[in-house]
Amino acid sequence: MKRNVVIVGLGLIGGSLAKAFRKYTDCSVAGIDRDESARVAALASGAVGKIGTEEDLKKADILFLCLYPKADVDFVRKHLASIRPGCLVTDTCGVKSRLCPRLAGLAKERGFSFVSGHPMAGKEKNGFAQSDADLFRGASYILVPCGAPKQAVEALKGLAPKLGFARTVETTPEEHDRMIAFTSQVPHVLACSYVMSPRCPGHKGFSAGSYRDVSRVANINETMWAELFLENREALVEELDTLTGHIAEIRNAVAAGDGAALRALLRRGRLVKEGLGE
Amino acid sequence: MKRNVVIVGLGLIGGSLAKAFRKYTDCSVAGIDRDESARVAALASGAVGKIGTEEDLKKADILFLCLYPKADVDFVRKHLASIRPGCLVTDTCGVKSRLCPRLAGLAKERGFSFVSGHPMAGKEKNGFAQSDADLFRGASYILVPCGAPKQAVEALKGLAPKLGFARTVETTPEEHDRMIAFTSQVPHVLACSYVMSPRCPGHKGFSAGSYRDVSRVANINETMWAELFLENREALVEELDTLTGHIAEIRNAVAAGDGAALRALLRRGRLVKEGLGE
Repeated sequence: MKRNVVIVGLGLIGGSLAKAFRKYTDCSVAGIDRDESARVAALASGAVGKIGTEEDLKKADILFLCLYPKADVDFVRKHLASIRPGCLVTDTCGVKSRLCPRLAGLAKERGFSFVSGHPMAGKEKNGFAQSDADLFRGASYILVPCGAPKQAVEALKGLAPKLGFARTVETTPEEHDRMIAFTSQVPHVLACSYVMSPRCPGHKGFSAGSYRDVSRVANINETMWAELFLENREALVEELDTLTGHIAEIRNAVAAGDGAALRALLRRGRLVKEGLGE
Repeated sequence: MKRNVVIVGLGLIGGSLAKAFRKYTDCSVAGIDRDESARVAALASGAVGKIGTEEDLKKADILFLCLYPKADVDFVRKHLASIRPGCLVTDTCGVKSRLCPRLAGLAKERGFSFVSGHPMAGKEKNGFAQSDADLFRGASYILVPCGAPKQAVEALKGLAPKLGFARTVETTPEEHDRMIAFTSQVPHVLACSYVMSPRCPGHKGFSAGSYRDVSRVANINETMWAELFLENREALVEELDTLTGHIAEIRNAVAAGDGAALRALLRRGRLVKEGLGE
């Protein structure tokens, strides 16, 4: 059965999903974006079969929300009457604890299914121009069922490998946000903090892979990330405090010239990494 | 003129230098290592033409010290009588401020030339088994002249492209150590501190490039890095304090829910990175 997919927000993630659906499935794809140049580019490149209208929303089997968290909720509220019961609605946001109850509430109210999702893929740069049908190749796809019917979760699990994902992981909003604070948000805070050093502008000739790795994601979309950080305030602050506590332990061992304590701390890090087989 | 090169310490860096000399130059290469298995492997793989003796040291045109900082100084002290005036002695240590005056002093005493060097290349794992003739391909080679005659510095500059380096950079011990604290030592402290989070062991399925990048070098050789950190105590502590100060600014904006301050901080990071054309 050929399914009707509507994708709202044709940035890096939405654009890549559109391209992956068109390249690897037989779903029809309609795209919605408030930015005209994104719409024109998506249509011209064949990433979407058409620009989505209210009528497309009404016929949608799957609705992918690929905006920022608050804009996703606003979109669903605004178009609630057009989302038919039976539609599978999902999002791609990087934080879940505040978003999920809101969208799950609207799902219950209107009778559609809502399963939250988070494709663990990205790039240092954003926008439709960066989108790629193979962005998700090998990546994890985190699913947060939010009380949706089992067949809705299974539908996304079935789509995942077609879109290129290597695996799906099911979790709760709270566990998702704690883990993402660690795996994704902290590295972005670090990258920005790191390049603020007065030494940074002179790094060339003195740097190699370590500099490149830590600084890579400093080229941040501050509007999006500020919203994601603030939506995950408690978990992110806790994780940053954990990190700076560990940095302080190493810093203090260095400052005290305490080689034995320093080696023990570095060894602790090495054993964690080795224990993960990495 | 076929030069006699002696390489002391056949680990990742020494082993890679040996292989690069053998593959890309017509120098003869003798290797010295206190570990028999490294000597056997180096000889068997052809990375060295022979195992170095006191006689080889006496004939050396270039002596590469590829041990830890203190061991490099100890080696030169112990074999001082065998290093002929006219020999070019260089090291590959990651810190310079304490090492350089010691080796420059011995150079003056004995009449050889000492130019300190730091190949900006490495791997997450150490030892001869990891060595690679192409480890230095595209990397920077930092040179610290330490008052050596100009022709000694020029000799290393001339060798650099043959060994694969993309560029050489000349600097002072103090500037080297300040820059390395930022570009290399801080990322290693970060990687170890980061993986100490209680969230780390459960990261799989929730992580992507950001986790991989920040944690990459946590697989640390704690003996070597503790020595490097302690040899660069002041600069490293200062750089860590700079970093944690910047992390605290972002952390506090998140904790206060101050979106404007948060966006301004993230924007500051982005502009630095963009300004470098990265």
